[in-house]
Amino acid sequence: MTHTISLTLEETFALAQSSLEERGFSTSQAEAIAESVTIAERDGCSSHGLFRIPFYLNALKNPGCDPKAEPELTVSDSSVVHVDARGGFCPLAVKKGVPELVQKANSQGIAALAVHNCYNIAALWPDVEALAENGLVAFAFTAANAFVAPAGGIKPIYGTNPMAFAWPRPGQPPLVFDQASSASARGEIQLHLRDGKNIPEGWAIDSEGTPTTDPEAALAGAQLTFGGYKGAAIALMIELLAGALIGDLFSYESSERDAHRVGAPFGGEFLLAIDPSHCVPDGNIKAQQARAELLFEKILEQEGTRLPGARRQAARMETKVNGISIPETLHSAILQAGRTT
Amino acid sequence: MTHTISLTLEETFALAQSSLEERGFSTSQAEAIAESVTIAERDGCSSHGLFRIPFYLNALKNPGCDPKAEPELTVSDSSVVHVDARGGFCPLAVKKGVPELVQKANSQGIAALAVHNCYNIAALWPDVEALAENGLVAFAFTAANAFVAPAGGIKPIYGTNPMAFAWPRPGQPPLVFDQASSASARGEIQLHLRDGKNIPEGWAIDSEGTPTTDPEAALAGAQLTFGGYKGAAIALMIELLAGALIGDLFSYESSERDAHRVGAPFGGEFLLAIDPSHCVPDGNIKAQQARAELLFEKILEQEGTRLPGARRQAARMETKVNGISIPETLHSAILQAGRTT
Repeated sequence: MTHTISLTLEETFALAQSSLEERGFSTSQAEAIAESVTIAERDGCSSHGLFRIPFYLNALKNPGCDPKAEPELTVSDSSVVHVDARGGFCPLAVKKGVPELVQKANSQGIAALAVHNCYNIAALWPDVEALAENGLVAFAFTAANAFVAPAGGIKPIYGTNPMAFAWPRPGQPPLVFDQASSASARGEIQLHLRDGKNIPEGWAIDSEGTPTTDPEAALAGAQLTFGGYKGAAIALMIELLAGALIGDLFSYESSERDAHRVGAPFGGEFLLAIDPSHCVPDGNIKAQQARAELLFEKILEQEGTRLPGARRQAARMETKVNGISIPETLHSAILQAGRTT
Repeated sequence: MTHTISLTLEETFALAQSSLEERGFSTSQAEAIAESVTIAERDGCSSHGLFRIPFYLNALKNPGCDPKAEPELTVSDSSVVHVDARGGFCPLAVKKGVPELVQKANSQGIAALAVHNCYNIAALWPDVEALAENGLVAFAFTAANAFVAPAGGIKPIYGTNPMAFAWPRPGQPPLVFDQASSASARGEIQLHLRDGKNIPEGWAIDSEGTPTTDPEAALAGAQLTFGGYKGAAIALMIELLAGALIGDLFSYESSERDAHRVGAPFGGEFLLAIDPSHCVPDGNIKAQQARAELLFEKILEQEGTRLPGARRQAARMETKVNGISIPETLHSAILQAGRTT
């Protein structure tokens, strides 16, 4: 039997924030991370919720990781805005860049935000959702640590490299997806190992390159991309966008740097934002939005379909009223981690 | 035995151009299409080569299709450039917008090109490759006709919706991919039908929604996206970008409009271009490019890997020297089509 602890979303935020602050995080870093963690719990994604707090605390073992870093914003005439996270964490760095990104996208029609030198343990969808709440179409890309084999290869090079996309909707939350370019999340394989279950075919190969359903062999081998070579092309694109393009690390470089194997990828995040009013010649956003809603209706007319993000939105309704519950062991680990070493 | 006709690339261009001009296409429309078709043949992609000429000629049956259309370029202070194709074909419309897109990307760091009201039968990769030859990182998206079921559904809504991406490389052709968000090209299923072969599992469902390997049942049913719901999310994103965002048709609307079922999708194309020099704080493009080359080397060190587009580049070497060959039946059909009705 698993003992659980029930928390409201306010308590979730407070627990995350205080455990980080007690461990030396600045108030602004701790608040931004606690917000990201609370959004994940609110949306039913526990793998990016309080479960991540120990990862944040562990990341402090990594070289140059600064829990008090003040991200530095650089704005020029260019529509590409830069934030140097200076060895801090993504949530605060992204938050620092978003207002300028929104302003550039509004004035120029399209703009980008390059976040540099960042520990990235957070989910991506809150970043694009925040942009879509400002009426923008948004993309986000980030690399990770090397866990995924390239097409035709057997050794990990790519990260699980998520890509997130958001589309603003009038009077309701944006349509959002946030998907790894690997066939499964790494955490899913770890959960199968913990529970003594086999993983589905197509998720991974062992260290000899043979397809495997054994989670231990999978973790020692390499994960596979979703959709074969097409998913691998997307994984490569994300390495280029969040790595070479903005001068940050590739996933395999982040892994090499992660000497303590704490699973805190270090690198960049690349965001794009488009102001829809620049994209139709007559600037009629309402007509654009109405047409998108027609498409969504057309999809939902078919039994068995749902829009991306629908599960997160359902969870949101539920957790707002009923709060969340986490394993007591995780609760203790967070309290413990915040008070020792 | 199949009789074939051998052609140099110059002869390929001339055949494409003259067959279009004889059928009433303006010189500029015919040249741009012939260029697109010749690039496809040069790169070993016969499905987008001369094979497409009959599609262009057939498209004239569609409402408002104008083989002499002069695309109209609209440039403002915005970084989003517009070209109204005015019922003509994509290759000329894109060509008209590219110089302005390059200029905006160079000055602002990131820019977009929205091509409107366009018959799109061409391959996407030449569009992004042309941008990468100007030193830009580039994306292109376009919808099609409705052939692909949404995740969980059984009736076609999405097109085969390709997404293309290009990364500039010093001293050699850009890295380029151009991939449908469907598991297979529609033409592949048609070829299996012609040859009396079953299609692989995972490509399609029949009209009842049951997975099928029968190409005829597949064509009457719906194609599936690559990589399950993740590919479906990409297909939906492309409908939104090339459809609602720029005020052009969704795939299902293009199908409804295609009364003669000639397979000439009508709608928009959306291109993004990023100038790498804006994306690293020190603007050092050479260092960015060198880092990308390191990643490519790291991938190619593993046996069995290749970079996206490698097959096209190999074909390019071959066809430059040896030209191409096409079935005599196709050659006759092109000559015939150009001279009747």
